[in-house]
Amino acid sequence: MEANSQPPTAENYAADISSIREAQLRISPFIHKTPVFSSETINAIAGRKLFFKCECFQKGGAFKFRGACNAIFSLDDVQAAKGVVTHSSGNHAAALSLAAKLRGIPAYIVIPKNAPKCKVENVVRYGGQVIWSEPTIRSREDTATRVLQETGAILVHPYNDGRVISGQGTISLELLEQAPQIDTIIVPISGGGLISGVALAAKSINPAIQVLAAEPRGANDAAQSKAAGRIITLPETNTIADGLRAFLGDLTWPIVRDLVDDVITVEDKEIIEAMRLCYEILKVAVEPSGAIGLAAVLSDDFRNNPVWKDCSNIGIVLSGGNVDLGALWYSFTK
Amino acid sequence: MEANSQPPTAENYAADISSIREAQLRISPFIHKTPVFSSETINAIAGRKLFFKCECFQKGGAFKFRGACNAIFSLDDVQAAKGVVTHSSGNHAAALSLAAKLRGIPAYIVIPKNAPKCKVENVVRYGGQVIWSEPTIRSREDTATRVLQETGAILVHPYNDGRVISGQGTISLELLEQAPQIDTIIVPISGGGLISGVALAAKSINPAIQVLAAEPRGANDAAQSKAAGRIITLPETNTIADGLRAFLGDLTWPIVRDLVDDVITVEDKEIIEAMRLCYEILKVAVEPSGAIGLAAVLSDDFRNNPVWKDCSNIGIVLSGGNVDLGALWYSFTK
Repeated sequence: MEANSQPPTAENYAADISSIREAQLRISPFIHKTPVFSSETINAIAGRKLFFKCECFQKGGAFKFRGACNAIFSLDDVQAAKGVVTHSSGNHAAALSLAAKLRGIPAYIVIPKNAPKCKVENVVRYGGQVIWSEPTIRSREDTATRVLQETGAILVHPYNDGRVISGQGTISLELLEQAPQIDTIIVPISGGGLISGVALAAKSINPAIQVLAAEPRGANDAAQSKAAGRIITLPETNTIADGLRAFLGDLTWPIVRDLVDDVITVEDKEIIEAMRLCYEILKVAVEPSGAIGLAAVLSDDFRNNPVWKDCSNIGIVLSGGNVDLGALWYSFTK
Repeated sequence: MEANSQPPTAENYAADISSIREAQLRISPFIHKTPVFSSETINAIAGRKLFFKCECFQKGGAFKFRGACNAIFSLDDVQAAKGVVTHSSGNHAAALSLAAKLRGIPAYIVIPKNAPKCKVENVVRYGGQVIWSEPTIRSREDTATRVLQETGAILVHPYNDGRVISGQGTISLELLEQAPQIDTIIVPISGGGLISGVALAAKSINPAIQVLAAEPRGANDAAQSKAAGRIITLPETNTIADGLRAFLGDLTWPIVRDLVDDVITVEDKEIIEAMRLCYEILKVAVEPSGAIGLAAVLSDDFRNNPVWKDCSNIGIVLSGGNVDLGALWYSFTK
C-alpha cells in the first residue's frame, strides 16, 4: 500500500496525468461524456453504493473509442494520411475505424475469424477495412505486420500504447468529477490498457483510491502475473468474456504491477448473473467483459474479504455493450 | 394547426404548465433526471436527428414514477396515511409502490393475472401489496373499488388524473432544456397520461413544437378517436406492446384532441425492429411500448408523408424498459 500511495511520475510509465489531461482536451469534441448510473436495488444487493460508469454508451459501444481517438488525433498529417492498422478482438477495431473515419483516414482492421458477429458489423458500419486472420494471437500479429509493410500505415495497438492508455484514463477524470465520493474503482483487466489509464489518473487525483482489477477465472493471467511479479501468459483461455483474453504488455505491466491494488477473479456464471442484473435493473446492454466489475463486487471472495470491507462507494466501469442478443439469451438459459 | 398553436389555458384541462412546474419542484428530490441519448448510426437510418429521452432509466424502469410520485406527494398527511390503490398493467403499479414506499404509506396494487412477470416482480420489489384480478378492465376496476372501500385508500388512476398528467409533463421540461433544438416530440399513447403532460408542457414552452402520438395498429383507439372527434374504445386489442392497451379517459381526451397533432400507427413487427435497434445500437433495454416512438419515426407512413418532412430534430420518449429478456428474444426470432 505504501508504494501505491505515491502518485506515479511521468518518467516511469507510458502515460501520466498530464498526457491523460491532454487526451481529454484532444478527444472531448468527439467522445460521449458517458453518464454514471446508480440503482438503489443493486446497492441493496451489493451492500454498498455502486456508481456505474456507462462506457457501453460510448461511441462504438465501448470505452475503446477514447484511446483510439487519442491515438489517431495525436498523429501528424503525414503519418495520418497513410492510415492506421490494428489487430483486435473487436471493440478496439470498431473504435479505431470510427476515429479514423472522423479524421478521414483509412483503418485496416485485422480480425480473427471467430470474432462475435456484432463486433465485425461495427467495424464495417464505421468504415473499417476488414482483413481476416486465424484466431490466434500469432496469426493476428503476423497479418497486421504484413498490412503495415504494404500500406505504410501506423500500428495502433489495442492496449500496449501510451496514447491509448492516456485516452482510456480520461474515464477516471470524468468519473471522479461525476461521483467524487468514490473510494474504490473496479475495472476489467485484459491487456491492461483500460486499468492502466484509470489507475494512473485516479491515483494521481487521489492516492487513497483503491483500484481493483476484475478478471475471469479462465483467463486469470493478470492475477498470476501480480502474484509472480512478472508477466505471465497462458497457453489457452476459457471464458465467456471474449474481450478479456489478451495478456499484459510491457507498457501496461509496470503500471498494473505498481498501481493496481488487487485482482478479483470471478467465474463465468457470476459474469452472466451480473449481465442479467445490468439488463433487468439498470436497463443497460452490457457485454460479458463489461459486466465483470459488477460480478466482482457481488462475488463471495470480495464480500467476505475483510480487506475490502471499507470500500463503501465503488465506481464500476461498464466497459462495453457489444453483445449479440442471441448469445446473451443463450448464456442466460444454460 | 391554427388551434394547436395557442398555448392551452389552465381552465380547460386537468393540468397546465403551472401544475407541471409545481410537479417538477415536488418530485425532483425523488426522480432521476434521465439522460438524452443520440446516435449518429440511428440518425443515419432515420434521416433525421433523434433525441432519445431515456425514461427506461427512470426509477421503477419507466416514466410512470413521475406521475405516481407527484400524486403521492400531493396528498395531505391524513389522506396519505390510508394508502393508495391502483389497477395497472404494471409500470404504474411499480411506480406507485416505490413512491408510496418513499412516503412510508401502503400501496394496494390490483394486477391482472396475465401481467408480465418482470412487472409483477417490480411491484413486489418496491413493497407494493399485490391483489390479483382477472385480465379484464372491468375486473380490475371492480377489484380496485372493493379495496378502496375496505381500506379507505386513495385511488391513483394510471392516467386519468391531473396529478399524474402533471408529473408526466415534467419530461418535456427536462427534454427541452437538454435538447432545445427539438421541433417534434413523439410519444407512445395508451390512456393518454404521458402524452397529455408532454403536450401541455411542450406547447406551452413552444407552441410551434409538433407533438405526435405513436400507437400500435392492434390498439389504434387513439387514432380512431382523433378521426371521430370522440373517445373510441375497442372490443379487444392485439399488440405486443402490453403497456399500450388502455383507452383514453375523460381527462386525457380533451388534451389529446386539442394538442396532439397526429397519431402515427405502426405494426408490431416495426416495434420489434425498433427494440432491436435500441438494444444493439443504443445499448438500452426498452420494452415494446417504449420503443414505439422510434418505430413510428422509421415507419414508411411517417417517412413518406410530406407533412412531416420538416421534422428535423425529433425528441422520442423511450418510455420504459421493463421487458422480460426471454420475451424479447422470442419476439426477435419469430
